[in-house]
Amino acid sequence: MDATPQEFDRVLSSMCTRPHPAAARAAERFLADNPGDPATYPDVATLEERAVATLGDVTGLDDPAGYVASGGTEANLQAVRAARDRAASGDPTVVAPTSVHFSFQKAADVLGVDLHLVPVDDDHRADTDALAAAIDDDTALVVAVAGTTEFGRVDPIPEVGSIAREAGARFHVDAAWGGFHLPFTDHAWHFGHASLDTLTIDPHKVGRAPIPAGGFLARDEATLDALAVETPYLETTSQATLTGTRSGAGVAGAAAALDEQWPDAYEENHERAAANAVHLAEQLTDRGYDVVAPELPLVAFSLSDAEFDAARDAGWRLSRTGSGEARVVCMPHVTRAMLDAFLDTLDAARVGASG
Amino acid sequence: MDATPQEFDRVLSSMCTRPHPAAARAAERFLADNPGDPATYPDVATLEERAVATLGDVTGLDDPAGYVASGGTEANLQAVRAARDRAASGDPTVVAPTSVHFSFQKAADVLGVDLHLVPVDDDHRADTDALAAAIDDDTALVVAVAGTTEFGRVDPIPEVGSIAREAGARFHVDAAWGGFHLPFTDHAWHFGHASLDTLTIDPHKVGRAPIPAGGFLARDEATLDALAVETPYLETTSQATLTGTRSGAGVAGAAAALDEQWPDAYEENHERAAANAVHLAEQLTDRGYDVVAPELPLVAFSLSDAEFDAARDAGWRLSRTGSGEARVVCMPHVTRAMLDAFLDTLDAARVGASG
Repeated sequence: MDATPQEFDRVLSSMCTRPHPAAARAAERFLADNPGDPATYPDVATLEERAVATLGDVTGLDDPAGYVASGGTEANLQAVRAARDRAASGDPTVVAPTSVHFSFQKAADVLGVDLHLVPVDDDHRADTDALAAAIDDDTALVVAVAGTTEFGRVDPIPEVGSIAREAGARFHVDAAWGGFHLPFTDHAWHFGHASLDTLTIDPHKVGRAPIPAGGFLARDEATLDALAVETPYLETTSQATLTGTRSGAGVAGAAAALDEQWPDAYEENHERAAANAVHLAEQLTDRGYDVVAPELPLVAFSLSDAEFDAARDAGWRLSRTGSGEARVVCMPHVTRAMLDAFLDTLDAARVGASG
Repeated sequence: MDATPQEFDRVLSSMCTRPHPAAARAAERFLADNPGDPATYPDVATLEERAVATLGDVTGLDDPAGYVASGGTEANLQAVRAARDRAASGDPTVVAPTSVHFSFQKAADVLGVDLHLVPVDDDHRADTDALAAAIDDDTALVVAVAGTTEFGRVDPIPEVGSIAREAGARFHVDAAWGGFHLPFTDHAWHFGHASLDTLTIDPHKVGRAPIPAGGFLARDEATLDALAVETPYLETTSQATLTGTRSGAGVAGAAAALDEQWPDAYEENHERAAANAVHLAEQLTDRGYDVVAPELPLVAFSLSDAEFDAARDAGWRLSRTGSGEARVVCMPHVTRAMLDAFLDTLDAARVGASG
């Protein structure tokens, strides 16, 4: 077969990364197991319980309800679905900042709910006044983000939670990417800090688990009960997950990644990634680029089309935000040397363009 | 870690199996790739095109639209979603036999459509008269099954297709499990035989790809277009899949499994599995059990609770249908020796029970 796996040495655009070696080994061991059928595959079900328990430790929840999902899209969709199905309104809607991940648009389309997107403030964070103004009696769910996809911003989570609670709406935090950085910052973002009902945190992003390993967590078992559809013939009586057959590799990989890395290795990674982001931001600023000062290890900056194309031609995987900035995510595989090589590419492109 | 992967030597209940070695190797190679982000991971995207093309060969479609899904549940859900969103009725419904997989109940719940289940005939197949009587102006989708979960039955696909067409409804065939047996039988079941709009066929079942590798196929690109949600910032402009980040291991594993095994190894597997099913049915009948004569390699038979428990105590993973029969799926890992050992267990249990 002539296709080759993607090398990570020039990948700056992805929120996924190389799995931790222990997680990859666990994934290979449990490749043939199906956590969706615990009567046939009981051991991998215990690994899932372990992974969820550790995710509870990460997210401030003593007795978490939840599961290892196919990804953040499923987790976000399930949060909207739980809110839709438990809503008092006959036409439940979702209110969220424009910075939310695309999966909320997908969820709205699939689930048949309206999604009201509210412009963010000048620093790319949720505007709490605007969110409050957008909420009405139909609002079933308010969403905030702890580590946005485009700018790595953390919304004012406790304030948004208060707004949701006052309105009688549920509150979901999407920490799919941010969730393995935020335990090591001063932000208030999780179940212990605010009135969240549900949260997304993806082991297969910064957590270094293999795909597929998203995380869906709920404060109450009642949320999972609301998602459960009765099964007529499986030896389990109901199923809350969106998928049926599920990946043992993902579940075992998530359990191993968390066992190996929480909390110390994740803390080391955060420190290194944050330092890398600061370094990149400083180096870009010194070179005259407009840089959005990073809050979490993600750096957005202005970049001409010519330089963007030159970077891609040199093999860099780089992406743009909706407003046109180039965007570098300082994932675990991103080293200081990679960033300096990227800067060299930009330097050569600028020289080439002027000369 | 003290959990161990499930051995398959006594698994008779699962529609999943050990991945083909070449598929497992491909899965490991592409473990870190994300087909949901083809701009960053281009090679694995070409593998998906290859897998879909081969699935078209298997299912009678020259120019298939489709993708490698997280599983049959996603594929079935997407079929219902496409029908819902393209329906003329403001309250689109789905008509299906009671034998359909549980994923249609889940899809109805998630998508907010009514599912009208129609009793099957005495041989556990769709009753075309009853289906026709259940169809009305709101019916957006009619479903039939090519290899039912409980009894391995194949519905009269061309007849159901005609009924759907006459009613102006779309027609979906769930061949998630049956699709890798049916190319080698005389059944009419796929796009070349009847007026199907969409079909589910799962490489991670009889296809011996690793989980997650379901298959969603459509006759027309317009179906995929109907599922596509516009993305505001990814370097792809829209996304039709239910999940976002996706498993390179599943896609590469599916491509490798299909490359290695279609058609010859799949044909050999079918012949062996069919012979095993006939053998098991005969042996059970000789021992006085009531056996549902197998149509595809799945054998359902009456079994007392005591014998069922004895089989489980002996380590056999066995399941029951909704109507109480025990059910053995003759998957690729199920050998003649395994079945004979299972019969030995039953023999010992009957001797034990009679004192």
